[in-house]
Amino acid sequence: MAEPVGILVLHGPNLNALGTREPGIYGTTTLDEIDAMLRALGKEAGVEVQCFQSNHEGALIDRVQEAPTWADGILVNPGGFTHTSVALRDALIAADLPVVEVHLSNIHAREDFRHHSYVSGIALGVVCGFGPTSYRVAFEALADHLRA
Amino acid sequence: MAEPVGILVLHGPNLNALGTREPGIYGTTTLDEIDAMLRALGKEAGVEVQCFQSNHEGALIDRVQEAPTWADGILVNPGGFTHTSVALRDALIAADLPVVEVHLSNIHAREDFRHHSYVSGIALGVVCGFGPTSYRVAFEALADHLRA
Amino acid sequence: MAEPVGILVLHGPNLNALGTREPGIYGTTTLDEIDAMLRALGKEAGVEVQCFQSNHEGALIDRVQEAPTWADGILVNPGGFTHTSVALRDALIAADLPVVEVHLSNIHAREDFRHHSYVSGIALGVVCGFGPTSYRVAFEALADHLRA
Amino acid sequence: MAEPVGILVLHGPNLNALGTREPGIYGTTTLDEIDAMLRALGKEAGVEVQCFQSNHEGALIDRVQEAPTWADGILVNPGGFTHTSVALRDALIAADLPVVEVHLSNIHAREDFRHHSYVSGIALGVVCGFGPTSYRVAFEALADHLRA
Amino acid sequence: MAEPVGILVLHGPNLNALGTREPGIYGTTTLDEIDAMLRALGKEAGVEVQCFQSNHEGALIDRVQEAPTWADGILVNPGGFTHTSVALRDALIAADLPVVEVHLSNIHAREDFRHHSYVSGIALGVVCGFGPTSYRVAFEALADHLRA
Amino acid sequence: MAEPVGILVLHGPNLNALGTREPGIYGTTTLDEIDAMLRALGKEAGVEVQCFQSNHEGALIDRVQEAPTWADGILVNPGGFTHTSVALRDALIAADLPVVEVHLSNIHAREDFRHHSYVSGIALGVVCGFGPTSYRVAFEALADHLRA
Amino acid sequence: MAEPVGILVLHGPNLNALGTREPGIYGTTTLDEIDAMLRALGKEAGVEVQCFQSNHEGALIDRVQEAPTWADGILVNPGGFTHTSVALRDALIAADLPVVEVHLSNIHAREDFRHHSYVSGIALGVVCGFGPTSYRVAFEALADHLRA
Amino acid sequence: MAEPVGILVLHGPNLNALGTREPGIYGTTTLDEIDAMLRALGKEAGVEVQCFQSNHEGALIDRVQEAPTWADGILVNPGGFTHTSVALRDALIAADLPVVEVHLSNIHAREDFRHHSYVSGIALGVVCGFGPTSYRVAFEALADHLRA
Amino acid sequence: MAEPVGILVLHGPNLNALGTREPGIYGTTTLDEIDAMLRALGKEAGVEVQCFQSNHEGALIDRVQEAPTWADGILVNPGGFTHTSVALRDALIAADLPVVEVHLSNIHAREDFRHHSYVSGIALGVVCGFGPTSYRVAFEALADHLRA
Amino acid sequence: MAEPVGILVLHGPNLNALGTREPGIYGTTTLDEIDAMLRALGKEAGVEVQCFQSNHEGALIDRVQEAPTWADGILVNPGGFTHTSVALRDALIAADLPVVEVHLSNIHAREDFRHHSYVSGIALGVVCGFGPTSYRVAFEALADHLRA
Amino acid sequence: MAEPVGILVLHGPNLNALGTREPGIYGTTTLDEIDAMLRALGKEAGVEVQCFQSNHEGALIDRVQEAPTWADGILVNPGGFTHTSVALRDALIAADLPVVEVHLSNIHAREDFRHHSYVSGIALGVVCGFGPTSYRVAFEALADHLRA
Amino acid sequence: MAEPVGILVLHGPNLNALGTREPGIYGTTTLDEIDAMLRALGKEAGVEVQCFQSNHEGALIDRVQEAPTWADGILVNPGGFTHTSVALRDALIAADLPVVEVHLSNIHAREDFRHHSYVSGIALGVVCGFGPTSYRVAFEALADHLRA
Repeated sequence: MAEPVGILVLHGPNLNALGTREPGIYGTTTLDEIDAMLRALGKEAGVEVQCFQSNHEGALIDRVQEAPTWADGILVNPGGFTHTSVALRDALIAADLPVVEVHLSNIHAREDFRHHSYVSGIALGVVCGFGPTSYRVAFEALADHLRA
Repeated sequence: MAEPVGILVLHGPNLNALGTREPGIYGTTTLDEIDAMLRALGKEAGVEVQCFQSNHEGALIDRVQEAPTWADGILVNPGGFTHTSVALRDALIAADLPVVEVHLSNIHAREDFRHHSYVSGIALGVVCGFGPTSYRVAFEALADHLRA
Repeated sequence: MAEPVGILVLHGPNLNALGTREPGIYGTTTLDEIDAMLRALGKEAGVEVQCFQSNHEGALIDRVQEAPTWADGILVNPGGFTHTSVALRDALIAADLPVVEVHLSNIHAREDFRHHSYVSGIALGVVCGFGPTSYRVAFEALADHLRA
Repeated sequence: MAEPVGILVLHGPNLNALGTREPGIYGTTTLDEIDAMLRALGKEAGVEVQCFQSNHEGALIDRVQEAPTWADGILVNPGGFTHTSVALRDALIAADLPVVEVHLSNIHAREDFRHHSYVSGIALGVVCGFGPTSYRVAFEALADHLRA
Repeated sequence: MAEPVGILVLHGPNLNALGTREPGIYGTTTLDEIDAMLRALGKEAGVEVQCFQSNHEGALIDRVQEAPTWADGILVNPGGFTHTSVALRDALIAADLPVVEVHLSNIHAREDFRHHSYVSGIALGVVCGFGPTSYRVAFEALADHLRA
Repeated sequence: MAEPVGILVLHGPNLNALGTREPGIYGTTTLDEIDAMLRALGKEAGVEVQCFQSNHEGALIDRVQEAPTWADGILVNPGGFTHTSVALRDALIAADLPVVEVHLSNIHAREDFRHHSYVSGIALGVVCGFGPTSYRVAFEALADHLRA
Repeated sequence: MAEPVGILVLHGPNLNALGTREPGIYGTTTLDEIDAMLRALGKEAGVEVQCFQSNHEGALIDRVQEAPTWADGILVNPGGFTHTSVALRDALIAADLPVVEVHLSNIHAREDFRHHSYVSGIALGVVCGFGPTSYRVAFEALADHLRA
Repeated sequence: MAEPVGILVLHGPNLNALGTREPGIYGTTTLDEIDAMLRALGKEAGVEVQCFQSNHEGALIDRVQEAPTWADGILVNPGGFTHTSVALRDALIAADLPVVEVHLSNIHAREDFRHHSYVSGIALGVVCGFGPTSYRVAFEALADHLRA
Repeated sequence: MAEPVGILVLHGPNLNALGTREPGIYGTTTLDEIDAMLRALGKEAGVEVQCFQSNHEGALIDRVQEAPTWADGILVNPGGFTHTSVALRDALIAADLPVVEVHLSNIHAREDFRHHSYVSGIALGVVCGFGPTSYRVAFEALADHLRA
Repeated sequence: MAEPVGILVLHGPNLNALGTREPGIYGTTTLDEIDAMLRALGKEAGVEVQCFQSNHEGALIDRVQEAPTWADGILVNPGGFTHTSVALRDALIAADLPVVEVHLSNIHAREDFRHHSYVSGIALGVVCGFGPTSYRVAFEALADHLRA
Repeated sequence: MAEPVGILVLHGPNLNALGTREPGIYGTTTLDEIDAMLRALGKEAGVEVQCFQSNHEGALIDRVQEAPTWADGILVNPGGFTHTSVALRDALIAADLPVVEVHLSNIHAREDFRHHSYVSGIALGVVCGFGPTSYRVAFEALADHLRA
Repeated sequence: MAEPVGILVLHGPNLNALGTREPGIYGTTTLDEIDAMLRALGKEAGVEVQCFQSNHEGALIDRVQEAPTWADGILVNPGGFTHTSVALRDALIAADLPVVEVHLSNIHAREDFRHHSYVSGIALGVVCGFGPTSYRVAFEALADHLRA
């Protein structure tokens, strides 16, 4: 595989509120800080990193559809769409890029309906439970994979 | 608790068609009439009432996210999203305001898939089955709670 | 419909202990206070209100059976029988009066077995989660319906 | 087996309303008329027939417990307890008499929760769907069995 | 309804072996004896009775299809097809005649897969558990119904 | 904790028939003998023991409701209500006393529907399978707990 | 029925990528080509055909809501929303026009979660598995129905 | 693929009664008329069309087994066998010809047990809900596929 | 047990196509070759072997019913009826002969619906997965059992 | 039964950590203290008591297998194997000695997967929820049974 | 395939007790006798046979892991691990040798939890129900396969 | 928190075969290489790393039990025990150290029974799907957490 040049980072619904809402569960780091960290990691690795958050399922799908024109992989925290969006899953399949699913909290230690993800079954791998660190190690795992 | 100052009223998908479609099930009252009634009730109670309807899940979530800046409680008829939207549930949890769920029809007397609500589990209370009266008494119950 | 003249209020098992047991969940209002409130509301509305509590399923059914001779509607908090009594459901169906189901607590936020009600499917509407206020707004919704 | 001398006929909750409520489903025959028919059939067959109806599960169990002192068999329409009463089932097992279960309506053509009976599994046989005729032919089948 | 003139009696698979196989469960009466009894009952009632047994689902369906040309009702013991034949159910629906389902044994006291019948849901009524007496009382119930 | 002064012993439906019905399963000891044994154990331990049996769910609930006025703990064999009574469970929760559930037979070795108990989840502990000895050791365990 | 004048064709999420993504499953025909074909068929039949694709559930619902003003029927491939959107189902019910559901692939031969459709239960009919031909024959079936 | 030369049309149980039974659901067109229409379509397309109906599962399997000697595809309405016949599914797999499943009614809008088809999972495509038109468009879709 | 004199070998639907259809799964051995092998094994063992294949469930049942007149055991590959035929199971029970179930393929490694067999629960033993060798070793195991 | 001479006490995985880990749930008594108590009880009763703990399922099974050579009964706390070990269940069945199952905590008040025990179904009786007292009263119940 | 040279025979937990425990179910043949028979069969076939029994899941896995160094196939009776051991399944997959699963009893005629095997899905074939003969014919089937 | 001093790395059954078996799924890296990498990472971070693999559930539990004496966290790939071992879960809970679960493959993209983990619910976080990189990033996430 040629050197990877781009990674799309997608944040699903309610992640824009990160750091200000429910800090007891999700911590005080904001989404901007996470995006900055990922862009910094991308810079080190010589990879363009674009970050996008939306509460609109359709907007996320739109971005997934255009990803293949510039990106080599997708890092996605689908938020609540994790458990309900077949459409997002279909978009990720169609994009035909390696997908890494990431969650701030450990979804397996929460309500039963959070134990099933429509994305996991088509992802390269999954990371959850480490707060913002989830994003960092997921990014590394994806970058690793793209370089392999 | 200080005097409540604001209540957000959210109407989910297809409620804009109220009064004109399927009057046999939902009656002939329009959504505008319901909103007017709720605003009037708010006036009496000295509470600002803002009403918002959308067929877009993301737009509803956007409104929930900004509610804490001005509102003390949320009255929500999630329509079809009642049974499918984890993202809306997550937004309501994050808003950290008392939520009252309301339905025009008695969802327990309809199809099986309408018997489960993602909102009920995180709501203060639920009212369903009384047509437009559902909104009125739900509003009263919420106002009551906010004054307590 | 002619002016309504009577409403039967039924309280199922353990509701007689209201106000003295588990106030953290059910509050400190007693059942007598709730009954007094409902009778007062009835007086205002020119409707006879009879209240009856029993821990005996059969006694509740007996009362439902005689309701059609004098009442126009039934307000029922079936307590623990909500989830287990087909016989009470059958009595309510046979009475052929509008039924409003009411709960003090939000049953959807409690144990799984409390999420199914044998009464909801045959009720006009359901109100839950607002403590004694549940009874008040449920009464209003029923009275509204009877006047319609 | 010696000549049978007695048959207990038990009617569960709401069957006292027979003939006056929901005649579209249950017909216009009253329970008294059914009991008279069964007593007449008993007379012909030289068998004492005692009929008992109650809306109280405990009262039905009490009667089942005393049946072995005088009866050879039990004809039971458990009404709504059909689907919910393990205690009635246990009483019938303990009585150690042949039990015939009878229903006026065809319970298999109604709601799903009516398709399971706690009594059927321990009964000699079941008859349902023929209105008052259900009782007559069930009685004949039981009498037949007792004479065999 | 005019006087009934004909009743089709259908016996499903393995009922031809009645009386010779597993007498401990099914008794020693043969199918010929049952058919003779039913024809005698028919004679008394002035009704033509035709009996047909087959191990072939298709042959039973063929007979059901021609029944409306001469019969007013169908008495059917579907044997093993009770639990598996949607096609037989469809034929019985299409025949548009009252159907009485009959079983020699109490199917509710046997294996779990015998607790569901594709016929019960579309039958007038069901009789099970009384051995050959099941047929007799089921016939009476059907004849009763046809005369009503 | 102060010295315990009273223990309520509750026996559910059909336990009054103990010793005379189905001795093969439940043995020949009568309920009176068990109650005498428990009262004797209470005397030794300086604890008042009141025993109550009923086939009526409501009567059992009534007794549970008055228990907190004089008793420190409840020993309950809910009989058939074990598997069906949410109302009894609610009464036991409301009484806010330690509850020990006891069964003569091993309910886990019987029909599937006997494997779930509405009481176990809110009990201090459970004893089953040892016949009358179940009561004795359950009593000891409860007394132990009250003294701790 | 008067001559039909309009048919709304709705394509759900990811169908805009048709022909370029996963041609092995979905073929190389683009959505524009399908739309052109349907418009041509409409022209032949003297029916206005409007085609609309969106990755946004809300946008699809908006279009369904305005359809009754000009269209006589709806041809819909709900894509991933097939399996998850109660809101789209509700919109289609409210529009009160005949709906034909169409899928390019045979959803019954894919993952289990694709075997259930919220649309099928309220559709006139369903066509799936024939690639772009699915649209053509579904259009014909709908046009046929509208002319009937 | 060479020009197709033959298509086998299979009709399962009860379809011979088409047009005479339950016209409210299935319409008044007879099976002969449908077969004539399909043969005419075949003539136009230069394809031999053989039609076969049976109430016997085995007879349908026999016909499927000989199909590969002369036919290029199979159009099958399995009737009630749709939901129960693994054997028919196995025969269709073994024939190794493209299979199109067709239903007159929309099986997804009927009883739950009609929502699963043993044939759909191994079919090229499925058409349902359009009455006799279902056959016509299914035939076209199959012919299209064979010509591709 | 006296020396066994006869074994009935039954092959269910589609097994007549063995060796010509789907050789990748079922191999190239024909059913005639398997029958010849079994007859040869029977000859060696001094046991009459009769082989019968049918696509008709009823025909298989007919043969099972006459087996007890001459055979000591039954070797059966029920094909697709394995998973659906209660009637065949009932016939095998009634025949009261030792039954050995055999499958060419390993049904546990195929679709989920092939994991349950109505025959296994009443068989002496089961052999699957070895192609024609399955028949040979199943025959040996049955012969062994008959000689024991 | 002759005087009992020996009782095997088995403790499953993690019970060696008793008293030091999670004292909030399991108390501060150590396993050695429990074993000493049981040996003392044995001494009083003239019964040899051998105690064995292992985190290895196989080691527990080994001990169960040798128990019949010297013991008359088994007291077992299977720990986490309660819910997962068919092999331990099989060993206990094969040992053919009365088994009493004991748990320190009330497993019915914990996670759902702890509500099923592979041992309960084959045990004489079960005691749970009383901490170390569970062992004491279970021992008494077993000793009682052995002396009976 | 070259001549097979070795077969590993694995016996799971409790099989060491064969012949001495529960002879009514498992017969009186000991495991040593079975092993001797299999070694004799191996000698005839020129194949080394090594037999290993353990009550320890880990010990069985250890042996499976070393099998590929000398064996061509594995004959395994996983005993109670059949239904619970994913780890053993994984070891057998990793060994990449043909596996034949064998059971003395017919597991399909026992408790429900014995109907699922983690091994069957990855085995070449399965033999059960014939007692020690199960091993003999399973061995033959495996040897046959290795020679093919 | 003080500086972390030790991390226990546990590998469950079959992981010793890593790199030599099924490299298509698990890659060619050996477990020794992974352990070396983790020890190197530990060295960098000033943390002692001990690695342990076993096919024996009990041996893994033994190691977990002694971990609290020297380690601050546990990195565990439970292999096949992931889905079956309540005992390992209990040991990890009792150790009261942060646990990170790691898998080489994406268990959500494999068989259904691999989608549930007994460890995930009590873990800090989970990483799966990245091959040996899973271990590396999981180690980093755990080290990060311990330093926080």
